[in-house]
Amino acid sequence: MQRAFSDFISIPEKAGIIMVIEKEFGPSAAEDWAKLTAGLANVVKCTFGTAALYDQQVLQEKIRVYRDAGLSPMVGGTLTEVAVLCTGGYSKRHLQGYLKYASSLGFTHLEFSDGTIYIPDDKRGDIIRMCIDAGFTVISEVGKKDAKKDALITTEKRIELMKQDLESGSTMVIIEARESGKGIGVMDKDGKVDFGELDVIINAVGLANTMIEAPDKSQQQTIYMRYGPEANIGNVQPRDVMSTAA
Amino acid sequence: MQRAFSDFISIPEKAGIIMVIEKEFGPSAAEDWAKLTAGLANVVKCTFGTAALYDQQVLQEKIRVYRDAGLSPMVGGTLTEVAVLCTGGYSKRHLQGYLKYASSLGFTHLEFSDGTIYIPDDKRGDIIRMCIDAGFTVISEVGKKDAKKDALITTEKRIELMKQDLESGSTMVIIEARESGKGIGVMDKDGKVDFGELDVIINAVGLANTMIEAPDKSQQQTIYMRYGPEANIGNVQPRDVMSTAA
Amino acid sequence: MQRAFSDFISIPEKAGIIMVIEKEFGPSAAEDWAKLTAGLANVVKCTFGTAALYDQQVLQEKIRVYRDAGLSPMVGGTLTEVAVLCTGGYSKRHLQGYLKYASSLGFTHLEFSDGTIYIPDDKRGDIIRMCIDAGFTVISEVGKKDAKKDALITTEKRIELMKQDLESGSTMVIIEARESGKGIGVMDKDGKVDFGELDVIINAVGLANTMIEAPDKSQQQTIYMRYGPEANIGNVQPRDVMSTAA
Repeated sequence: MQRAFSDFISIPEKAGIIMVIEKEFGPSAAEDWAKLTAGLANVVKCTFGTAALYDQQVLQEKIRVYRDAGLSPMVGGTLTEVAVLCTGGYSKRHLQGYLKYASSLGFTHLEFSDGTIYIPDDKRGDIIRMCIDAGFTVISEVGKKDAKKDALITTEKRIELMKQDLESGSTMVIIEARESGKGIGVMDKDGKVDFGELDVIINAVGLANTMIEAPDKSQQQTIYMRYGPEANIGNVQPRDVMSTAA
Repeated sequence: MQRAFSDFISIPEKAGIIMVIEKEFGPSAAEDWAKLTAGLANVVKCTFGTAALYDQQVLQEKIRVYRDAGLSPMVGGTLTEVAVLCTGGYSKRHLQGYLKYASSLGFTHLEFSDGTIYIPDDKRGDIIRMCIDAGFTVISEVGKKDAKKDALITTEKRIELMKQDLESGSTMVIIEARESGKGIGVMDKDGKVDFGELDVIINAVGLANTMIEAPDKSQQQTIYMRYGPEANIGNVQPRDVMSTAA
Repeated sequence: MQRAFSDFISIPEKAGIIMVIEKEFGPSAAEDWAKLTAGLANVVKCTFGTAALYDQQVLQEKIRVYRDAGLSPMVGGTLTEVAVLCTGGYSKRHLQGYLKYASSLGFTHLEFSDGTIYIPDDKRGDIIRMCIDAGFTVISEVGKKDAKKDALITTEKRIELMKQDLESGSTMVIIEARESGKGIGVMDKDGKVDFGELDVIINAVGLANTMIEAPDKSQQQTIYMRYGPEANIGNVQPRDVMSTAA
């Protein structure tokens, strides 16, 4: 691929992963967007709690489009949590059926989370390994969707869980910021990044092992400014990828 | 149609009507979106005051796309009001010409409103019946686009007009919230739903006969929480349909 | 082209130029949007600082789509500024290479600005003339992207530079409001238009020679209300064109 204006403008090579959260595209919009942002994003999270509203064929078509464009389609964590709730818990049989089905649709990546349901810490490893056995690249997430519950997790605990997930085989651990990016995880109530805490986490876990959910463009900018182009950013909106990658 | 993940996730059947307000799609974006949200939305309002800016062929193409996808294309109320103003009042002849033309474009539904123009209360029935005679399913709206004027309508008056419209043949009556969803109808200035008033209206008119304009996702959620999946929601943004329907 | 509802609704003929800033479309979304807004917008600014992230072929495809739809594709000013920085200044040779390349991609219009870099006032004319010689229609911009620096430019100075640019061959001069439209140029910190200053500028420079960046729909409305349909508006979002043109 030949980048436009490459003889006149030097863009630093993007080194980190960009994970996009995509909820709005039909198959042709997905294809058109993938064409536009070719080579910039890496992972596309395109299911969420309501993925069961998708026509199965349309979802498969989108997944194929993303794979053809070199993007990794990822099952969102909430979907898995809902599936767990609906099928009556993380029983091995139920989960394996679910994973087999998700894999048959074409998903290659899976986000593992317990943002809305309770999973004992010592069960996380089992589940992550089950997902890997089913053929998935696992990105796990530490944090609760409820800001009050999330605030109860100490930095030490967060680090401990992240390390544990990495040991269990997760390729990366996400720090939750939801889609709003405010008052949760390392984002304060105005959506500013709390680098005091983030520095400690990244120092302990490693930049390459951390994905920071930063839905807001200004958050993305400050993160790249602080950690360089190697930072991994998650929950980027499709239309922001060109700016994020800049 | 086979819903994705249906063996793993049970979604309560949607029972109420979802009316989308769509101003941004060309024909292929419309088709792509209709594919994505298949079976979730019901009515698409795709003209507004400025519909006269559409190339006629492009508009017809969009309408055909929506009909093919099982969606009912609706002429917005403001367009009819503007047409009335431009043609010099709700004269029978002018209106019939307008309705015939709108019908020839493929519209099946028509929103009847007097949000910006003055129509005597006792003329509403005549107009609604004329629209029905022209083959339209009529959804009428009670309320003014100007918040100050709208605030002058008492709850009793609102209910009276709604009942009158239903008797005249409207299939449903809309409670105005504009596109902003703030400081108008049953929405307070922060966009919170005033259930005190809404409960009284719905109690008097019936949930099935009421469509609540609720452009904001959090408004939609609180309305479904209070009235269940049978609530009818209007002015939903195209990209929010997947969440609204969840 | 036959406008819809033209027998029933009279829309005042748009007289001024609408310049759209477009960062999100792949080739088919661009085509679909151009179809929808046929004849309403005039100029599309579709590169920005990060245009070097575009696949060259995708960018060329978009430009062709716009030209086929009768829209003039414009190179954004920031891109040129970045190119200048990367190639080591506005040297004649470098700039000519850049202009030749941009022209070969199909761009017909070029925005000349010094919003982020320093260009001596007496060099502006040379550069503008060089762009014209390369075949471009030039729209130049007066103002700084940094609000503090921009505030230091007096109204007199702004007018002087605008007149100078017009004499150098710019077809029009843009008053900067960035994409946010707040606290910059003639927009106050709440995004309200400061007509006190704008009246003085337009009085001195001429309405036809001025393009006012007004990304917000309410700004566009107040500008049209004050100066009529001849006003030239810039940085309009693609999805707002139908309303802007109304």
